[in-house]
Order: sequence, then C-alpha cells, then structure tokens
Amino acid sequence: MKKCFRIPSYRSLAFLAVFFCAVLACAQSDPLPAWNNGAAKQAIINFVHATTDPSSPTFVPIDRRFATFDQDGTTWVEHPMYTQLVFAFDRVVQLAPQHPEWRTTEPFKSVIANDQASMAKFTTKDLEAIIIATHTGMSVEAFQTMVRDWLATAKDARWHRPYTQLIYEPMLEVLKYLRANSYKTYIVTGGGQEFVRTYAEPVYGVAPDQVIGSAIAAQYTYDADGQGVLMRPPKILLDNNFSGKPEDIYLFIGQHPQAAFGNSTGDQQMLEYTQAGPGAHLMMLVLHDDAQREYAYGPADGLPQTEVGTFTQALYDEAKAKGWTVISMKHDWKQIFSWQK
Amino acid sequence: MKKCFRIPSYRSLAFLAVFFCAVLACAQSDPLPAWNNGAAKQAIINFVHATTDPSSPTFVPIDRRFATFDQDGTTWVEHPMYTQLVFAFDRVVQLAPQHPEWRTTEPFKSVIANDQASMAKFTTKDLEAIIIATHTGMSVEAFQTMVRDWLATAKDARWHRPYTQLIYEPMLEVLKYLRANSYKTYIVTGGGQEFVRTYAEPVYGVAPDQVIGSAIAAQYTYDADGQGVLMRPPKILLDNNFSGKPEDIYLFIGQHPQAAFGNSTGDQQMLEYTQAGPGAHLMMLVLHDDAQREYAYGPADGLPQTEVGTFTQALYDEAKAKGWTVISMKHDWKQIFSWQK
Repeated sequence: MKKCFRIPSYRSLAFLAVFFCAVLACAQSDPLPAWNNGAAKQAIINFVHATTDPSSPTFVPIDRRFATFDQDGTTWVEHPMYTQLVFAFDRVVQLAPQHPEWRTTEPFKSVIANDQASMAKFTTKDLEAIIIATHTGMSVEAFQTMVRDWLATAKDARWHRPYTQLIYEPMLEVLKYLRANSYKTYIVTGGGQEFVRTYAEPVYGVAPDQVIGSAIAAQYTYDADGQGVLMRPPKILLDNNFSGKPEDIYLFIGQHPQAAFGNSTGDQQMLEYTQAGPGAHLMMLVLHDDAQREYAYGPADGLPQTEVGTFTQALYDEAKAKGWTVISMKHDWKQIFSWQK
Repeated sequence: MKKCFRIPSYRSLAFLAVFFCAVLACAQSDPLPAWNNGAAKQAIINFVHATTDPSSPTFVPIDRRFATFDQDGTTWVEHPMYTQLVFAFDRVVQLAPQHPEWRTTEPFKSVIANDQASMAKFTTKDLEAIIIATHTGMSVEAFQTMVRDWLATAKDARWHRPYTQLIYEPMLEVLKYLRANSYKTYIVTGGGQEFVRTYAEPVYGVAPDQVIGSAIAAQYTYDADGQGVLMRPPKILLDNNFSGKPEDIYLFIGQHPQAAFGNSTGDQQMLEYTQAGPGAHLMMLVLHDDAQREYAYGPADGLPQTEVGTFTQALYDEAKAKGWTVISMKHDWKQIFSWQK
C-alpha cells in the first residue's frame, strides 16, 4: 500500500523552499573536502558518475550497488596494534583472577605480564586462543555490552582519544558519498563481526546487517526459564581474511561489489573479486606513508615493512599492474581525523 | 552529496498530479485483497500500524524493520516434495551416466530406479549425500545456470506449471505490503541459499542479499589463467533449519526480526526469537488445511500429519499459548495462486 499523504497546501511551498536550497547547496558542494585534488579523488568521483549516471554505458541499477570497506588500516588506525587485540588483552588481564592457571600458561602469561616482546611474537594460534578465551562463553547481548563498556573508556596511547575517534575522515566522506548515490556500504573486516557491529552505525553509518567480519558461531539454546538465548560457543565460524573476504561477501551479498577499499594483502582477494565483476569498478588501497600525522609502513618510498598490515611490494606491484588506485595518506588526504586541523 | 535536481517548473505540476492520484488510490486500496477479512488479516494490518505509525508507542525506526519468511510451505508449495529435492533427484538421473557406481549404491540407486517407496524413507544423511553429489564441485556461476535452466523447463505433477508459479498470492501481498512500509523482507529457508537466490528477486521481489538459507561453503581459488573463481566444495557451511534460523538471522541481520512467518517445527525457533525482541511483533504460521485448492496436512481439524512440513500438535499448542497467529489457508485466503480464480 502506498503511504497516505495529506492533500498538499502550505506544505508545497515549504517543499519548494527546501528544494531550491538543495539545488544551491548542491552546486557548491564538494563531496570529498578532506581529499586533495588528484588521481585518487578523481577516481572516486569518476566511478560514481560512471555507475550512477543513467546515460552511462556502465550504469548500475540501484539495488545492485554495493561497496565494501576493510576496517583496520582502511577506515581506522591499526597501528601499532589492532584495536580489538587491545580489547582482548585488556580482557585477559581483567579475567586473570578467575584463571590462576593463566599465570603459568602461554599466551596468557605474557599478556598478564605485559611482556611486549613476547606478545609481538604471538602466532595465529596464540591469538585464536586469546580470542576464544575472551570473546566466547557468554550470550551475544552480554558480549555487546562488554565491548560497548570497554570502548566507552579505553583510549589509545598516542592521541589519548577513544578508539572510535581514530576514524579516517576522508574514508567517512567516501562512505557517505557512496550512500548518497544509493550504494550499500559494507564493512568487510578481518576483525570480529560482533565487535564492529557495536559501533558501526554511530561511527560509520553502517547498520549491523551490513557488517561482515570474522565470526564466532551463534548457538540458540534455552535458559533455565525456557527462554531462547543466543550464546557464543568456542567456535570460529568465519575467518574473514584473505580468500575469506570474497567467500563471505558472496555468502552475505551474493554478488561482486562494484567498489572495494583495503590496505593490505588481507584485502587482495576482495579487490580481485571486485574487479572480476561486470561493468565499472573501483579498487583502492590505502598506503600508510604519513609518519607525522598517522604512521608510515609499507613498501613505497623505501618505508619499512612491518608485520601489521602487510602492504607488500608484491601487492603494490599487483595494484599497479591491474589499475588499482593507491591512496597516499600523505599526499591524497588533506585531513586525516575530524579533530585534526 | 545530495542529488542534484533541476529547478522545478512544469515538473511541479506533474508531481502534484501524481500526488493527488496517489491520495485517491490510497483511500480505496486494500493492501491484502487475496485475504478474507478475519483475525489473521487484521493481525497483519494492526502490526504494520503499530510499528510504522510515528505516534505509536511501539513505533520501529525504518532501518530496524526486518521481516523473515520461511519458504517451503510458507511462500510456496512444499507438498508432496520440496522443489529443491525434485531438482536434486532430476540431477542424479542426469549425472548417472558419469557415475556407473550409483546404479548399485544407495541412495542414488533408488533415485535412478525412481523407487518412490524407498525414496520416501531417505534419512537426512541420504539427502545430504545427494545434495553434496548434485550441488557441489562446480563454480557458483555454473550452479546458478544449472538451477535456472532446470526451473525454466520443470513442471509440477499436479498443476503442470513451473514451480515458480506455485507461490501463494496472499504471502506475496504481505511481502509487498511490508516493503511498502519500509520493512526489509528476508527469505529464511531451510532450502539452499543459492538455489533460492536464482529466482527470489523476480518471484518474491527479494534481492540476493536478503536470502538466508542452508549454504554450501564458497571457496575462492584461482583457475588455470590465474583468474579468481568461487567454487562450491563438498562442505555444508550453514544448516538453516530449527535453531539454525535464529543463529543465521543473527549472523546476517544482527537483530531480532519484528515479524516472522513459517509453517512447521523448522520455524519454531525463528518465531520464538522474533517474539523475544523488543517492541511489537508478528508471528504467523501457515496451516495447510485446504485439500481442494492446495493440500491438507497438520494437526488441526483432525487432518493427518505427514513427514513433510511437520506442523505438529505441540507447535499448534505453542502457537496458541504464545499468541502466534495460525493462518488457515482454507478460511483466511480468498485466493491461493495468482492464476487460480
């Protein structure tokens, strides 16, 4: 049923007034003011025109417009450690009194002792053990509350700000610009889906159903009162890294995205999968080359490579060979954080 | 960036004309003409008003409006056999020449011999073996083509119509009515996600990203030319039945639906999970009690129970105890199929 409107009267006039204001604002507005003019900014604008202008040969119907964004190092700071790992380590310390055996068992022992050298050498297996110990065994609601409480007080060591303020303003603009052009914007993160869902809507404008991430299985069971409850058993259902990204994009969305944004080898397959779809595409990689305003790590300009966010030389070469756009934080971004002048 | 409009001129007049037509049409239209007046129809209309009228104490913001629909027996015919099983059995017969060993191996032997008595006794393990043999080992695109080709020619035995015409018109109306009121409508089926995605948009108006189903894992790999390809390995990732429904709804949507529609014990947990959410809800179960226009099976009115679509007495009792609405196909539906007068 169509929505019922009242018969228009003075409202029509108000409507026209808003209309003219919109036209004026529109003519003047730059959708990406935190970007410097250059190839990267132009690539985004060209892509939007190529896929949303009805006269374009590569026009994409509205319900087929999907864009996917990696999170760590792409939409917010990942250096020197993923935020979710900081959360997990804090939680190990918090839970330690209930687990006296952790004081003599790795990887927990090193976390409790804050042994940075040892923690820097943690293997994927170590990290999985920590995730299972800190992220499972509670209801989904209890986990969300835990994350929200932590995010409300935790601050990063360099800027002394809540982690949810370490978002890249230029990428927020891209998210908004794409949504204003009827794109559905998804966060597609190697981080935990439920972790990101707790803040994705206020921070990115991305609703929970558009967050894809590594996921603990949910288990529907009944409590003592016979009420259904979704628990988090110690089981990883989705590992949303590397090949996991196109696999999970297909599971959730069922098609190639038109645009994808990443910053490391963990995003390579997502960008390949995006490019393999029909029509016009946009594949972008954020290069961290601004030690002054953020961090510098990666292959370009002789910058040192690090373990975190491996923007390898091979990835750089693949980007160049395939026409993916490399975003230089130093040169392409006028502003990095909303609070940074 | 806001969309750019031209300065309105004659367009304003055209707009007003459309406006008045909409007001007139709106005053006369019944959103659910294939439904007889009664408690079931009224429950749907009341629910929509309760959750979309801004003055309602149970108003739900637009981006939180989710409704989930089981498919087999809820939105289309499931009797005497699930459509996807007919597809799978047809495919066993088609593949048989390449698998001479199937002629002496169950469950394939019975399918090839069309031994209905034996097929009726297939266990879940038998059916899984058939699904793995017929639904995996190809790229996701090759599988979609296979399903589309089959659906284009296969016809059901009773009405001699394509399966995609065996959709319940009253449920199509509910899907449209909810979408017109800004609900996102999801198919949440025990059937295969990829199977349903091939026709969900033209048939139900449901895009691929809003189809949740049992799922074969996708596997991203590279072909001989180094091109990425998503294959279907012999691995079931999601079993979207019973408890799997709330688990997968949580995985995909991240919240309780406001409304859920089912017809069997496989939907019980989905309806419980819907009711456990905040605000106003709608939980509905389709009762198949119309042998003349469709089929009759289930506990009410002394109808015989069958193995397919177990609307058990216990489910009927739970529905009554919890205030779920049971839809009688015989009494609540004026019309069942679009082509049936």
